[in-house]
Amino acid sequence: MGAAERLAELGETLPEVPAPAAAYVPVAMAGGLVMTAGQLPLVDGSLPLTGRVGDQVELDEAQDLARRAALNVLAVAASVADGDLDRVRIVKLTVFVASAPDFVEQHLVANGASNLLGDVLGDNGVHARSAVGVAALPLGAPVEIEAVVEVLDA
Amino acid sequence: MGAAERLAELGETLPEVPAPAAAYVPVAMAGGLVMTAGQLPLVDGSLPLTGRVGDQVELDEAQDLARRAALNVLAVAASVADGDLDRVRIVKLTVFVASAPDFVEQHLVANGASNLLGDVLGDNGVHARSAVGVAALPLGAPVEIEAVVEVLDA
Amino acid sequence: MGAAERLAELGETLPEVPAPAAAYVPVAMAGGLVMTAGQLPLVDGSLPLTGRVGDQVELDEAQDLARRAALNVLAVAASVADGDLDRVRIVKLTVFVASAPDFVEQHLVANGASNLLGDVLGDNGVHARSAVGVAALPLGAPVEIEAVVEVLDA
Repeated sequence: MGAAERLAELGETLPEVPAPAAAYVPVAMAGGLVMTAGQLPLVDGSLPLTGRVGDQVELDEAQDLARRAALNVLAVAASVADGDLDRVRIVKLTVFVASAPDFVEQHLVANGASNLLGDVLGDNGVHARSAVGVAALPLGAPVEIEAVVEVLDA
Repeated sequence: MGAAERLAELGETLPEVPAPAAAYVPVAMAGGLVMTAGQLPLVDGSLPLTGRVGDQVELDEAQDLARRAALNVLAVAASVADGDLDRVRIVKLTVFVASAPDFVEQHLVANGASNLLGDVLGDNGVHARSAVGVAALPLGAPVEIEAVVEVLDA
Repeated sequence: MGAAERLAELGETLPEVPAPAAAYVPVAMAGGLVMTAGQLPLVDGSLPLTGRVGDQVELDEAQDLARRAALNVLAVAASVADGDLDRVRIVKLTVFVASAPDFVEQHLVANGASNLLGDVLGDNGVHARSAVGVAALPLGAPVEIEAVVEVLDA
């Protein structure tokens, strides 16, 4: 079973890749690596929730938002692999979590992204990861995720 | 018209590259990529403004500081390309913005950097980007920018 | 004198590499580069101190924690270089410091890591670096460090 079928089995679909804006694009390649722009947990172009985790946003909600952001990472990565998820390998994730001062479970939030990527990509979804609690994110997003990706040969 | 001429036309000049300090240098190369140290918006060695954006620092001021930090990124990148800006390609920017808790326009701050790089480098300035709001930055800087750069063959 | 001997002379030993958890591993390789997961200053599996620097944690304590996190970076990097520290080159560090709102000496905290890497690895420890003050880190860690590493040929 390929990655696209596993994604479907999870009841998920790849979102549209956002259009590039001026000098800033969703994904760039160099040195054999692909680097994504920071992906917000946008669903159909808007944020389901805003605010800080541990404050306006609960842990389980944040985990689901991390999963949404990871789907956007997948969509962006697939866009430079001819849409073929089986050619996408996730090397590194950085998971930024807008955090209340006393919220220290950023790693559990990040699991929402890591688990989705593992479920969909199998061995190609196994990655190194940093999870960090930040003050605020664009548009009030509770989570932002960037990735270093390898595009495998067809 | 080359990148150096576009820079001059914008009324900007490349700042001096800061001297390396001990085990820490402004730029390092590996695997065909160049990674810059985080660049503060230093002008002649000092910060024009300090504090958090949305607090002591206004959005338009922060955008200009992002532009200053991007000039430092350019200077550092040029230093490993024989000073030739036409050989500098910006692959990825991470823009850290010291943010008041309710400031959520980090992406607009980052535009100050992205637009300068696009204006000066053209297609070579088109990059993936993350913008993140952090608690505080070294020396009270409102903005810090790091970049992954590709040095093109002469 | 090799890196392992310099490490011993400093009175330090490499910690155990943490076991991989599910879709998330301590280190990943691609495009000739090695990227580590964010390393906390864990000592024998627990954090000596928690809290924000400039608040519950003093600068000199934070510098020592940065040194601990750097030892974990070294251990993780050595694990993909057949345990040979002389094959480890540090290219880039990102040092996240959980910071009180008015703490702006993240660069001094980061020196705790940079100096250790320089002392142990010599020229191979000279790296580009970003130091950033964040709201909070996993488990209440005051410091988290991630690295881009090059593994040199034997």
